[in-house]
Amino acid sequence: MLAYDGTGFHGWQIQTDLPTVQGALLAAARPLFEGEMRLTGASRTDAGVHAVGQAATLTGISTLPPAAVQGALNARLPREVRVVSAVEAAPGFDARRAARGKRYLYLIDNSRVRSPLLQRYAWHVNGRLDVEAMRSGLGLLRGRHDFSAFCAAPGREADPWCHVRAVHVRRRRALVAVAISADRFLHHMVRTIVGSAVEIGGGARAPGWLVEVLRSRDRRRAGPTAPAHGLTLLRVLY
Amino acid sequence: MLAYDGTGFHGWQIQTDLPTVQGALLAAARPLFEGEMRLTGASRTDAGVHAVGQAATLTGISTLPPAAVQGALNARLPREVRVVSAVEAAPGFDARRAARGKRYLYLIDNSRVRSPLLQRYAWHVNGRLDVEAMRSGLGLLRGRHDFSAFCAAPGREADPWCHVRAVHVRRRRALVAVAISADRFLHHMVRTIVGSAVEIGGGARAPGWLVEVLRSRDRRRAGPTAPAHGLTLLRVLY
Repeated sequence: MLAYDGTGFHGWQIQTDLPTVQGALLAAARPLFEGEMRLTGASRTDAGVHAVGQAATLTGISTLPPAAVQGALNARLPREVRVVSAVEAAPGFDARRAARGKRYLYLIDNSRVRSPLLQRYAWHVNGRLDVEAMRSGLGLLRGRHDFSAFCAAPGREADPWCHVRAVHVRRRRALVAVAISADRFLHHMVRTIVGSAVEIGGGARAPGWLVEVLRSRDRRRAGPTAPAHGLTLLRVLY
Repeated sequence: MLAYDGTGFHGWQIQTDLPTVQGALLAAARPLFEGEMRLTGASRTDAGVHAVGQAATLTGISTLPPAAVQGALNARLPREVRVVSAVEAAPGFDARRAARGKRYLYLIDNSRVRSPLLQRYAWHVNGRLDVEAMRSGLGLLRGRHDFSAFCAAPGREADPWCHVRAVHVRRRRALVAVAISADRFLHHMVRTIVGSAVEIGGGARAPGWLVEVLRSRDRRRAGPTAPAHGLTLLRVLY
């Protein structure tokens, strides 16, 4: 399991000349393995997105036991990336294909003046959000639906159907947390859902509006995409 | 009231050629005031220490109302420092001298592998801490005592007596939080108390040891000074 602060990374996926989480892990792993390695992340998190429970499969030839690989990786990785745990997987196991679901957390700093201590991990939204309205709106997204309206690139996804299993909205003082679990997510889906929920929380839309948006399957009907830095991948479910 | 992420600052107090919170505030305030200004912080936080409720008095000549000063400062300050609220003070009011107490929070990341998302704000301590033992040890510090044993520079303080009004220790999963309220604090007092509490939580010392340390008034008897980055000034009490 991996944890990372996504602030300084251009997302999960390796890119030439840009720091990425996958790139950092592969660079740290290279001296530990013979020949070719493969690293598959369960979620290709976007630039700026964080993780406390990303899952990944590292395939390669090594005589080191998982605990030694974990220790060696953590010794070589930048402080922003940690291998939280490591186990040997069954042959052919693929962290992405085997995933049965994912859980994301989106944090909103709803204080009048943006908190300097939350700025890396929360989206600052001015004006008191109506958390009750957000909760009843988001509750309407539960279940199995075509989520094309909440997908940044609807054409790119072969299958727009996702099963949203749980949506929770909580306020603790000025911090509003939105947690969403689903079997799978489309591109920018959590961020578009949160951007839409904030339209409801701010009073621009009624909670029932989300049903119209969902049925339209039209991205232009949903709210704006919430910024990446408020999003954290909590857990991959197997 | 001020909030800041202390990571990039060499503490509160202005220094030549080094970024400090006081220096950043004075630089942002200069164009808003005529002639000389004075900025007094209730707490001279150390390098790396954060604040969500620092109080400060800014004295100078300006026709701007407090809300306009607040807005102008926030527009000019680096993102790491925010003026959370601003009010006009009574003539002669001094944020430091008028303070009746302060409340600090110290965060400990007690997970096996240091969390990248907590590394700016929490001290990573390996090995499960016994929070019950820490709580009963720290409870013995409540009340009015000579805290010389928990002071980095005992000779420098004219008055080593402080009244610790409340100490709370809480665990939430891997995060251990220590909150301490007192009428006043000596240099490094919270960090030395937390460093000592971790000795107890790790099993190296019994809770009652803190009474011996306190009575000795000898800094060498206390535990190590916990690192600055886990400390946050929560509130100044008036």
